[in-house]
Amino acid sequence: MSKPKVFEKPIGVKDYLPHAVTKLRQIENQVLACMGSWGYEQIMTPTMEYYDTVGVASSTSDQKLFKLLNNRGTTLVLRSDMTAPIARVVASVLKDVQFPIRLSYHASVFRAIEEEAGREAEFFQTGVELVGDASPDADAEVVALAIASLKAAGVSRFKIAIGHVGFLNGLFEEALPGEHEAQEELKAFLLGRDYVGYRERLRSLTLSDAMRSELEGITRLRGGQEICSQALALSLDATAQASIRHLCEMWDALAAHGVCEHVLIDLTMIGDFKYYTGMTFEAYAADLGFPVASGGRYDNLLQQFGRPAPATGFALKTTRILELIGAGGEPNAERVLIAYDADGRAAAFDKARTLRESGTAAAVVTERVDADARQALREAETAGANDGELRYKGAAFTKLLTYFGGSRERE
Amino acid sequence: MSKPKVFEKPIGVKDYLPHAVTKLRQIENQVLACMGSWGYEQIMTPTMEYYDTVGVASSTSDQKLFKLLNNRGTTLVLRSDMTAPIARVVASVLKDVQFPIRLSYHASVFRAIEEEAGREAEFFQTGVELVGDASPDADAEVVALAIASLKAAGVSRFKIAIGHVGFLNGLFEEALPGEHEAQEELKAFLLGRDYVGYRERLRSLTLSDAMRSELEGITRLRGGQEICSQALALSLDATAQASIRHLCEMWDALAAHGVCEHVLIDLTMIGDFKYYTGMTFEAYAADLGFPVASGGRYDNLLQQFGRPAPATGFALKTTRILELIGAGGEPNAERVLIAYDADGRAAAFDKARTLRESGTAAAVVTERVDADARQALREAETAGANDGELRYKGAAFTKLLTYFGGSRERE
Repeated sequence: MSKPKVFEKPIGVKDYLPHAVTKLRQIENQVLACMGSWGYEQIMTPTMEYYDTVGVASSTSDQKLFKLLNNRGTTLVLRSDMTAPIARVVASVLKDVQFPIRLSYHASVFRAIEEEAGREAEFFQTGVELVGDASPDADAEVVALAIASLKAAGVSRFKIAIGHVGFLNGLFEEALPGEHEAQEELKAFLLGRDYVGYRERLRSLTLSDAMRSELEGITRLRGGQEICSQALALSLDATAQASIRHLCEMWDALAAHGVCEHVLIDLTMIGDFKYYTGMTFEAYAADLGFPVASGGRYDNLLQQFGRPAPATGFALKTTRILELIGAGGEPNAERVLIAYDADGRAAAFDKARTLRESGTAAAVVTERVDADARQALREAETAGANDGELRYKGAAFTKLLTYFGGSRERE
Repeated sequence: MSKPKVFEKPIGVKDYLPHAVTKLRQIENQVLACMGSWGYEQIMTPTMEYYDTVGVASSTSDQKLFKLLNNRGTTLVLRSDMTAPIARVVASVLKDVQFPIRLSYHASVFRAIEEEAGREAEFFQTGVELVGDASPDADAEVVALAIASLKAAGVSRFKIAIGHVGFLNGLFEEALPGEHEAQEELKAFLLGRDYVGYRERLRSLTLSDAMRSELEGITRLRGGQEICSQALALSLDATAQASIRHLCEMWDALAAHGVCEHVLIDLTMIGDFKYYTGMTFEAYAADLGFPVASGGRYDNLLQQFGRPAPATGFALKTTRILELIGAGGEPNAERVLIAYDADGRAAAFDKARTLRESGTAAAVVTERVDADARQALREAETAGANDGELRYKGAAFTKLLTYFGGSRERE
């Protein structure tokens, strides 16, 4: 292909200008503070990991991993999520810390192939992992914390759909014993929310009418606590039954957290991470077609790093939330321009220092102005007299101070 | 080579555990706030850039760049500094914004080869760029802001050495006209602070005694304002003279900023970035062999991105500062453990929510405790009775609340 133009950046990655950074930082800080208040402590891991360890353990398919070689010829990957790196840390640096371990993170993650579809190759995630607790209470805690985190991020209207990988595994194994290919196809239709394809595939399978009707029926199993009791009657498979009982217990804990208004049970929910083993969930903001958070239980991942343990967690899709919510910012923040000449410099800098240290102004910019440029400054001041905003060169200010000719000319 | 062990991370990269992250975040937030108060607005750019644009323009030598291919076969690099990406942004997305443009950043940057020497392949930098102002006042502003930023980061004892690329270029061209190879060798010795090698190389060159003595003398030209007048007499070369006059003007502006106690002029200073064209500086913390910040003027970089403009800036070596300064933290922060059973759950969660929302406690952890585990909890409480700290499983708490058996058992 042709050489990129000098000012181009790679496809699928972004520049965040000051206005967006202010919003992003606000989301990041508020969400991390929320997670901190629940006892989750922040960690950071490297951008690069070994392909053979974290790369292979991650839920990202091989062709979506960004790969590179280090100078020893070992293949590295850019992290595609934070769950596998945190599992590595829990099993190595933190191996002597007793469970449960509660960790939070805010990091950019990388997906290679999505750039082709106009999707993002690098984006931010903010999340938690709760390692070493298999209970329904632990799952309810991360769902309740996801709800608190979305609110902290400024997302007000959203629903969280909760399912259980084990329910679908048990139900399909009962209906189609040993037919793994058919089971996986059905699950793929559900993952893609392609209910038409799911029902068509069902009709092509050899099933009793009652069983087919039951399997079709799960696409309508969405709702509150009542779904649990209905689902208990659906399958006698032990895994399916245990999964539903886990969801029922979770629901009670979510009620104790006071968050059920945001939650619905959706038994077609699988979760798109291959390491999920138990409950999974996705959060949908009102009027938005894609999830703003997702999570679930992954009880088999830690053993890949040599410290077997149950674990559960979630990640906010922070970059999407950034696009969703309005600007925060400080609309009334004072930005002061101090213009000076050689003789006024010391007084100008002294004033700037005082203003910066006192925190009275959000920003203080000093600018040396020669005699010729003073006219431009006066014109800018006149132009901004009505709306109280002075536009000078590339920036906007709320206040102008001038220090010309030895002593402070005017304040 | 052999496969990496499951829990290994690549050589030269780091995991930051909660204690280190707290410190790092504190430095990051305080420094960015300081930069903001000087009118520098934060931007973020992608981790990956095109090799042919930012990669080539960066100051990092080719073999130190981490390279990878995207799925179109184009070579990408992991950013090795933030100066070149910001130049790209100023020349593209911000092309209609008038100069001067003041931008700040906090980002991790990548250097491939240094991992072999036990150095870091990924580390944090926090810095600013001031684009579109060629004046000594602009250079003095970034030096004064570097000083303010180091203080904001918690570094109290440090010195900033300032030099000028143009002075050495002019002086060497005057002494060794056209002998570029010898000039570059001499500069390499100075860059490596190898004054013995520098003097030996000087002795091997055909020079008048007076000139040799002058060139040797510059290694002793370190000090305050007096160095400027001494240096003016050293070389009649126009570039050298203009450079020294620039430094003298800068010194006056630094005096007006009230920061001269931290500054010394060191005319052997070159700066290790090949794109520097004017003044350069490095900050050294007391008792530390390596710089904690470095910066300089680069008036030719922006034109590579199609928008010619003078520019100056600096970066704190944030990862090194993290190792240098003591822990900040909140020693008196209250961490509450709320233990509950099924019947106490709703009351426990209610209390947790109240504490989290009020901000009374820094962290509130809820834990379901069965009858067997209550004994362990009581023992932990007894063990911690003396120092007011309760160690339970992997974590430390300052306060325990229990909600067992339907109603709040005890607070």
